[in-house]
Amino acid sequence: MEHQLTPDRYHPTIGSHEPVLSVSSGDTVSTTTVDAGGWDAGGDRVTSHGNAQTGPIYVGGAQPGDVLSVTLDRVWPNRGHGFCSRKILPNVLDPGHDGGVRESEWLRFVLDFASGSARIENPPVTLKDLVVPIRPMIGCFGVAPPQGQAISTATSGPHGGNMDYRGFGPGVTAYFPVFAEGALFHIGDGHGWQSDGEILGSGIEVSMDVTFTLVVIKNKTIRWPRGHNDDYIFTAGNCRPLDQAVQHSTSEMLRWLTDDYGLSLPDANILLGMFVQYEVGNVIDPAYTMICKMPRSVLPETAPAALVPS
Amino acid sequence: MEHQLTPDRYHPTIGSHEPVLSVSSGDTVSTTTVDAGGWDAGGDRVTSHGNAQTGPIYVGGAQPGDVLSVTLDRVWPNRGHGFCSRKILPNVLDPGHDGGVRESEWLRFVLDFASGSARIENPPVTLKDLVVPIRPMIGCFGVAPPQGQAISTATSGPHGGNMDYRGFGPGVTAYFPVFAEGALFHIGDGHGWQSDGEILGSGIEVSMDVTFTLVVIKNKTIRWPRGHNDDYIFTAGNCRPLDQAVQHSTSEMLRWLTDDYGLSLPDANILLGMFVQYEVGNVIDPAYTMICKMPRSVLPETAPAALVPS
Amino acid sequence: MEHQLTPDRYHPTIGSHEPVLSVSSGDTVSTTTVDAGGWDAGGDRVTSHGNAQTGPIYVGGAQPGDVLSVTLDRVWPNRGHGFCSRKILPNVLDPGHDGGVRESEWLRFVLDFASGSARIENPPVTLKDLVVPIRPMIGCFGVAPPQGQAISTATSGPHGGNMDYRGFGPGVTAYFPVFAEGALFHIGDGHGWQSDGEILGSGIEVSMDVTFTLVVIKNKTIRWPRGHNDDYIFTAGNCRPLDQAVQHSTSEMLRWLTDDYGLSLPDANILLGMFVQYEVGNVIDPAYTMICKMPRSVLPETAPAALVPS
Amino acid sequence: MEHQLTPDRYHPTIGSHEPVLSVSSGDTVSTTTVDAGGWDAGGDRVTSHGNAQTGPIYVGGAQPGDVLSVTLDRVWPNRGHGFCSRKILPNVLDPGHDGGVRESEWLRFVLDFASGSARIENPPVTLKDLVVPIRPMIGCFGVAPPQGQAISTATSGPHGGNMDYRGFGPGVTAYFPVFAEGALFHIGDGHGWQSDGEILGSGIEVSMDVTFTLVVIKNKTIRWPRGHNDDYIFTAGNCRPLDQAVQHSTSEMLRWLTDDYGLSLPDANILLGMFVQYEVGNVIDPAYTMICKMPRSVLPETAPAALVPS
Repeated sequence: MEHQLTPDRYHPTIGSHEPVLSVSSGDTVSTTTVDAGGWDAGGDRVTSHGNAQTGPIYVGGAQPGDVLSVTLDRVWPNRGHGFCSRKILPNVLDPGHDGGVRESEWLRFVLDFASGSARIENPPVTLKDLVVPIRPMIGCFGVAPPQGQAISTATSGPHGGNMDYRGFGPGVTAYFPVFAEGALFHIGDGHGWQSDGEILGSGIEVSMDVTFTLVVIKNKTIRWPRGHNDDYIFTAGNCRPLDQAVQHSTSEMLRWLTDDYGLSLPDANILLGMFVQYEVGNVIDPAYTMICKMPRSVLPETAPAALVPS
Repeated sequence: MEHQLTPDRYHPTIGSHEPVLSVSSGDTVSTTTVDAGGWDAGGDRVTSHGNAQTGPIYVGGAQPGDVLSVTLDRVWPNRGHGFCSRKILPNVLDPGHDGGVRESEWLRFVLDFASGSARIENPPVTLKDLVVPIRPMIGCFGVAPPQGQAISTATSGPHGGNMDYRGFGPGVTAYFPVFAEGALFHIGDGHGWQSDGEILGSGIEVSMDVTFTLVVIKNKTIRWPRGHNDDYIFTAGNCRPLDQAVQHSTSEMLRWLTDDYGLSLPDANILLGMFVQYEVGNVIDPAYTMICKMPRSVLPETAPAALVPS
Repeated sequence: MEHQLTPDRYHPTIGSHEPVLSVSSGDTVSTTTVDAGGWDAGGDRVTSHGNAQTGPIYVGGAQPGDVLSVTLDRVWPNRGHGFCSRKILPNVLDPGHDGGVRESEWLRFVLDFASGSARIENPPVTLKDLVVPIRPMIGCFGVAPPQGQAISTATSGPHGGNMDYRGFGPGVTAYFPVFAEGALFHIGDGHGWQSDGEILGSGIEVSMDVTFTLVVIKNKTIRWPRGHNDDYIFTAGNCRPLDQAVQHSTSEMLRWLTDDYGLSLPDANILLGMFVQYEVGNVIDPAYTMICKMPRSVLPETAPAALVPS
Repeated sequence: MEHQLTPDRYHPTIGSHEPVLSVSSGDTVSTTTVDAGGWDAGGDRVTSHGNAQTGPIYVGGAQPGDVLSVTLDRVWPNRGHGFCSRKILPNVLDPGHDGGVRESEWLRFVLDFASGSARIENPPVTLKDLVVPIRPMIGCFGVAPPQGQAISTATSGPHGGNMDYRGFGPGVTAYFPVFAEGALFHIGDGHGWQSDGEILGSGIEVSMDVTFTLVVIKNKTIRWPRGHNDDYIFTAGNCRPLDQAVQHSTSEMLRWLTDDYGLSLPDANILLGMFVQYEVGNVIDPAYTMICKMPRSVLPETAPAALVPS
């Protein structure tokens, strides 16, 4: 079934808020998200919250101990401009390194949908030819965390949240552990473009039209968000420091290879060690995100199953 | 001028050792390296040192305050087998996670040069079809560090060393800061294949034939190793934790964009923030290596110069 | 005014929950806390939440932008036994180090109030003479965080929370930034004894009688919890990694010395650098706690003020 | 036997340099050290090396696999002034926090041996009454590392080195693993006073008269430096980040309790968890130092042995 949701409220936390829509497993939802500053498609500021979330959406049948699969069917800007910060955040520069930019003013980008690219509206002379491709992605999405926690959309964790990973774009499926009845899915903080690490503290922040399909996978325990696209399966470790995010994402991938792809632990060590790839989600939020990836081409052929994409 | 060097000694440190060859800036050297365990092309163990280095090579005219450019013209295994560990190292798994492999025995790989790929000699049944492409690279190379230090080939730093970055393969040019007269270039620890992070503690360790060209760039200060290939320029931050390696490599890239590509610091913030990519060299050595990359396609057009590849 | 509070509910998060008591600035509250496992004075398990909190208490007049001062007038076990874990957590041991204890069973401690000390009920032979002094402290307390967040009592942050610092005992005053109207003070997780780092994952967990005085300090911004005892003022940095907790606590102390003790920033650099002491709160929770201390004997004499203890 | 050594050279690395003195196990040596900048007792700059070391001293009978015990019999300034930096280093402040001190000029301190205290020569008005006790300590000492490494005196490791721990003062015994024949003991970088962390990047740097006794303990393996004073035994973990230094020092203490004090691993978990104390050595050098301490009063009574102080 397909649902159309027009948001009338936005949340600055991901938590067990009252659902704005109730759907069944397998349903598809089309809705909108405001940008990171709370501005909508029409250029109005409809909330002052940072990374304000649309939702939550209650998915019938989802219980703690299940997994929620979220396929991003469509993510596309619903207005012709976005904003991006211009100052590399000090935590990614050497201590005491003055990055040379005092104030973090916003750059306004004009999006040209015909060419699929964006330009700075009033660029510095040297960067007058700078063209950035439009590659829409979702910075912050996830499900209600356990025990009634309400976690700021500034950060991330096992429940997802503000992972700011450029890989969460259209065509991607993400998996989240379910901690609350109905899963309570939230989504927001779209970026028209973002590079690794989100080191400016923002991508090109823009309001979005989003369409996604929510599926409950029963009785399946995962500890960290997972995902797949056509070429890779991947896991997300969300915490500080980056070293620990490496540990979480690598351990989660090892579990995936054994639990779902049927490899023995020793064989999974070899396969993962031979082919692992890491990708930096963000290195500036309260929790960093390290992505651990495996090319699908090297994975064992198994019958497609809940967490084995076909 | 071209030189042929047949090593008769190997070093377990990178330091101000007596040169085994003296060359001029612009000269090309062909030589061999032993594998990480000290085994040579003929399968003999000629040294017991780990990551034993061929060299050092004295480059005439190189002085502290210069840069040594090293172009890897050729890197190719000189024997038909290599070794790889089979246990993911515990520091990349969650604390207390038993990776499930007690002993880190060596897997023997057979290299098939015709197909350009490698296979495990006696593979576990599940991995019997595992084929790994041969993508040769240098795990450990660099120049003598300052003040008479002799730094173990287990680790890395501003002088290079055991960075274990899969990107240091044929066709790549690396840049090292010169700290000692003659630069004193060392090279060793070839891998026939390695994925991100070297999380098994090894790639496919194999002895190599190597040919490289050494050029002195006068009066040029860099703080961390740099490099370029056809598509990217990149910098290497070598230390623990990974968060700090991010800081070093990002700061070094910012300096590159301003000092050599002529961008103002504010403009460099924007360009770097928009297009930066990170790649994990290693996350298991005493110093981790984080690579900060920029696509050459987005760099400003400037006259080719010492550190601006044409 | 003095209040007696008998809890009838406990919270697994610190957040904007409905207050169970409303007091005025300067009032004193006597109440009880359950132990970390939810067991009360009578040995009944009254909640299954971890580090379940008594409260919250609404303090009249407290507004975002104020500080809540909490003086721990009395903290004392209200029953004769406590529990302590027996396994050092793997994250404080070398990766791959098998700490040698499989299961983390609970040790039961008998508290002898006459002698002020505790013993293991059925000790291993070698530790039969082990005597631990009773030094009661509060593991987890704080105020509602901003934006409606509800933060797990497993972790800590600017709002306080599960800092597990052994210095939060009777006679100590703690200061928290106020983020919500009424401050909404929570308290729980008493320890009869705990050493540095809480490396077993617990102190001697015991239910407590607590008496504390709550004072609102108007229009005073602090970024991290602070405190003082007879000899020291101190700040708490709560996050991972420990290196970053050092940064937060040191920066907060520098602000204290300039904003409240009237030192210039250069003079504060000298004084802090000369006399700073660090103490490890915990190194096992999701956020670590590093304490930055200054001996009161070296602080400039200033008129006692809001944040200058007399 | 007692030796008097007058240094005529100083080393900027700790390594297998030619010995300047050869002694037997049990011998005592009196000598001098220059300050961190290379200035001697007479106020002359006799070397430009940082933390230049006196030595090395060859200790007869010491072989790899042994331990060198170094008792600091006397450490006392041999001139009446010292130097201290005045700027808190940026890596211990929040990223982007401007510590407020541009240049790190040196403060000159006058040492008053009668009162055992030091004062700034031309103090800022606010700090005119600042008095610092003279508590002499050794910032950098240790033994030659393995494999011919020569490690900069800026950093530290299993061999000791620049630990900058205020606890290495007179009366203390330090233990180092022997990696080279003769151990090759180095010593330098005396501080008249230093607080935790050495966050200014220096203590009160002063040249010293030192007397120490060197004893070889045969066939004893330790992995990190250890030490004891009248009240504590302690271990030093030297690396970045601080979290990892916690791991090394805690694991080393666990080995001490089992290997030398005869506790079972489960009992050692309990005793260590109950009484561990941490102390920050330095948090500004290339390797940080975390000290793990145990009060001697709680240790099991065992026959005094090689590594069990009586």
